[in-house]
Amino acid sequence: MRYAIEVAYDGTNYCGWQIQPNGMTIQQRLQEAAAAAFGTVCTVTASGRTDSGVHASGQVCHLDLPCEIPGERLADALNAHLPEDIGVLRSARAYDGFDANRSAKRKTYRYSLYFSPRRNPLLDRYATRVDAPCDEGALSGAAALFTGVHDFAAYCSSGSQVKTTVREIYGISLSRREGLLDIYVCGGGFLYNMVRTMVGTMLWHSLGKLSLEDISASLREGRRSLVGKTMPAKGLTLVRVEYSPDPFEAVR
Amino acid sequence: MRYAIEVAYDGTNYCGWQIQPNGMTIQQRLQEAAAAAFGTVCTVTASGRTDSGVHASGQVCHLDLPCEIPGERLADALNAHLPEDIGVLRSARAYDGFDANRSAKRKTYRYSLYFSPRRNPLLDRYATRVDAPCDEGALSGAAALFTGVHDFAAYCSSGSQVKTTVREIYGISLSRREGLLDIYVCGGGFLYNMVRTMVGTMLWHSLGKLSLEDISASLREGRRSLVGKTMPAKGLTLVRVEYSPDPFEAVR
Repeated sequence: MRYAIEVAYDGTNYCGWQIQPNGMTIQQRLQEAAAAAFGTVCTVTASGRTDSGVHASGQVCHLDLPCEIPGERLADALNAHLPEDIGVLRSARAYDGFDANRSAKRKTYRYSLYFSPRRNPLLDRYATRVDAPCDEGALSGAAALFTGVHDFAAYCSSGSQVKTTVREIYGISLSRREGLLDIYVCGGGFLYNMVRTMVGTMLWHSLGKLSLEDISASLREGRRSLVGKTMPAKGLTLVRVEYSPDPFEAVR
Repeated sequence: MRYAIEVAYDGTNYCGWQIQPNGMTIQQRLQEAAAAAFGTVCTVTASGRTDSGVHASGQVCHLDLPCEIPGERLADALNAHLPEDIGVLRSARAYDGFDANRSAKRKTYRYSLYFSPRRNPLLDRYATRVDAPCDEGALSGAAALFTGVHDFAAYCSSGSQVKTTVREIYGISLSRREGLLDIYVCGGGFLYNMVRTMVGTMLWHSLGKLSLEDISASLREGRRSLVGKTMPAKGLTLVRVEYSPDPFEAVR
């Protein structure tokens, strides 16, 4: 029996999504919760990995259980065995062929910045501080260049192995919230560190360190020297993964 | 030499503002930072105490130092000795007669709620979960009754010793933010637990447990039986304290 779950987590104290020998991960906590709830070893597969320190408010995963339970009950069964910084928000029986990773159509990430000469402890857990005034116009101008289909080779950490570095960005929007600037990036798929490097590039443009032409050239020519630095993990949150049909709405 | 500082803190791991024998407090951390920076024992006086677990994004304090330093430099001097969950945002030389507690004219608190059947780890640090749909109209209706001058005896935890329980509320506003409902309460002064009990009462009205007439009667007659429960500390943040003149703007 395959089930879909929507998971939120505070990534601060984890070494990212994927199980690894040298630190605690979100995947390990979820698989331990499933083992505690159902007495069975199973794999929890996410829409994609998140890096060490990255948060999620809407990660989607699937898992296969040997037992049949009402889909919406799975969330509470897992939550009973999860720590405070991980929570299952929704659960459902998955439709035939649903795969949280391969079926994902669109993902939306949020990168949050705050602009201040000094650290603010109430913002600093889920946002990155920038010691400069906010130039929203310049950030938007750089963001507009990323929309559409581009080769994001320059925005991909070296060492990652992918067939192609071409990706489509559907849209980037900026919005303000309580002293924060949120940058929402929606796309069909993302390379390793791509969102964090895009935001670093937008920021460098707003600080006058890169021109719009540099950014266009970085997409045309793939040169790492024309992009900004990769921003810290703590400002990044995976907010939404979309499927068609929606596994939490589909009639079963 | 008297100085004014604006401080933000994540109250999660503290036993409130005031120094006490059985746990770490914000005041103790600030006084230790002053001692480390200036080699002197001094008292840091806040606009008012905050309870265990309550946060602040704009607490204002004063302290007297035996040395003269540029007012705006004090923030960084203290920040060098403060932990990650406490930060000084601004500092200035205080004008004659400034007292962070006695000179405070208005304070604004924010209480943040989220409405969900399940805990959300990304919201839960600074907001309180309500397992019911949000009825913003009912919350606003109850909030309107609190505006103005009232005797808030029913909204004050027993055991507190104050000359009068009459307080003026200048305004209450509700706003939405990323899955949260923020309730801002601005007033001339507040009794112990008053904001948390006001929000609990608004919530009970929205859940049908108290009528508007009950709330009016609670203000008229001071009966505790007509008010809601005191909400948890973690949803409460002291966001602003106002003075006239503003100690951070005044010419010295």
